[in-house]
Amino acid sequence: MTALPRALGSTGTGGSPTATDRLLSVLAAFDHEHPALCLTDISRRAGLSLTTAHRLVGALAEWGALERDESGVYHVGLRLWEIAALAPRGLALRQIALPYLEDLYEATHENVQLAVRDGSDVVYIEWLSGRSAVGVHIRVGARWPLHATGVGLALLAHGDPGFREAYCAGELASFTPHTITDPARLRRELAEVRRTGVAVSDRQITEDALSVAAPVRTADGSVAAAVSIVVPHADAQVPVLVPAVRVAARGISRALGWLPERA
Amino acid sequence: MTALPRALGSTGTGGSPTATDRLLSVLAAFDHEHPALCLTDISRRAGLSLTTAHRLVGALAEWGALERDESGVYHVGLRLWEIAALAPRGLALRQIALPYLEDLYEATHENVQLAVRDGSDVVYIEWLSGRSAVGVHIRVGARWPLHATGVGLALLAHGDPGFREAYCAGELASFTPHTITDPARLRRELAEVRRTGVAVSDRQITEDALSVAAPVRTADGSVAAAVSIVVPHADAQVPVLVPAVRVAARGISRALGWLPERA
Repeated sequence: MTALPRALGSTGTGGSPTATDRLLSVLAAFDHEHPALCLTDISRRAGLSLTTAHRLVGALAEWGALERDESGVYHVGLRLWEIAALAPRGLALRQIALPYLEDLYEATHENVQLAVRDGSDVVYIEWLSGRSAVGVHIRVGARWPLHATGVGLALLAHGDPGFREAYCAGELASFTPHTITDPARLRRELAEVRRTGVAVSDRQITEDALSVAAPVRTADGSVAAAVSIVVPHADAQVPVLVPAVRVAARGISRALGWLPERA
Repeated sequence: MTALPRALGSTGTGGSPTATDRLLSVLAAFDHEHPALCLTDISRRAGLSLTTAHRLVGALAEWGALERDESGVYHVGLRLWEIAALAPRGLALRQIALPYLEDLYEATHENVQLAVRDGSDVVYIEWLSGRSAVGVHIRVGARWPLHATGVGLALLAHGDPGFREAYCAGELASFTPHTITDPARLRRELAEVRRTGVAVSDRQITEDALSVAAPVRTADGSVAAAVSIVVPHADAQVPVLVPAVRVAARGISRALGWLPERA
């Protein structure tokens, strides 16, 4: 159930790659394992000739999408970052959420995250690191499958029912003996998340961490993101964390235009 | 001295735009004033025919660089944001700096910023908003000319001497009666910043705000960024803020591999 790697050089509907495909394949050559690449690496990873890679990398560098350091290695550039900061599900959402995440951090001093769904994964768009040394394998831009994280359970529980059922029926990757891999158990967990409004993921990614998550809603009531706190499993006080996480999630929802229904 | 707008559709060395130029012109159509665009807007702002814009926008949307909402409006997409998060001067630097910025925020509860230089501007790559209602016209991705901000003075003072002199000799934009517009005064200020290690910008952008900034160094000792705090001018306690800002800047510098020389 981990996300399939997207084809680097394919955006068209078949046939030979277009100029657009080739340019995007240069950008897609960069990822978390490869944040800095020389021209040869780019050409190999993008499946382009050195001549074509040289021409495209030159154009991207001139425009500011890539930056070349003294040693000739290319990095993603500040101009691409500035444009990407406009992504409503990236920095723009983060900007609205940040004061509430700061409040949650100040109230708890634990690891605080904001995540959205992309396909079968959660993508973390904000992460304030707490004082506890819990083994949190999270960074901004990191991905994990939905069923294994608190934020993922919150997003899956409140998302489209058709998508949810397809996800539950698919293969559920396992990371620890505690990861939910039984579809029936996952369905029960998700029903419980909908009932309580809170998702708890206990040692599903690492043996030492527990997360508590709550959904973030937009003006139309749909769930756009989830907030979570990750703490060491050993001394996790779930009943204490739940209200704090819920208050933060509701605060962000209000800032996004959501108005709670009168019960 | 404000940055010249970069030509939207030009990356080549003249002549008719290439396929690369056209694709980048679609991305460049999005900015802080235009974070959401319909196809017609994109075609007009990018200087492309509707047919060409339709084809390029389709390819970018399929790849995930753009996302289309229910109303047919396009936004910058999560996949572009994920790749842009790899920019060493964007989110990557921010990720290293964030714990120190959080500490500075907790110690002061004021507006805390991290900025880098791009051409004649500072670009804010992080901003934690404090409790004070000072009129801070800053957001992530925002730009201001170097001479008018604390972070800009810190970056200009410690940057390349040739660039510094060219900047001082250029036109210095004015925002308030307090903005430094006299080249001789700017040179004196910058010498003082180098001497003290701290830059103070007093009511240069708005009449009510004062900022205190310090440089962030990398392993080779060069200044890569600056940290600042912005407070209301009326009750600014500069001597109190200076040590806190300097400690945060040195902490980030150490995390970037800088080792202070023995004096």
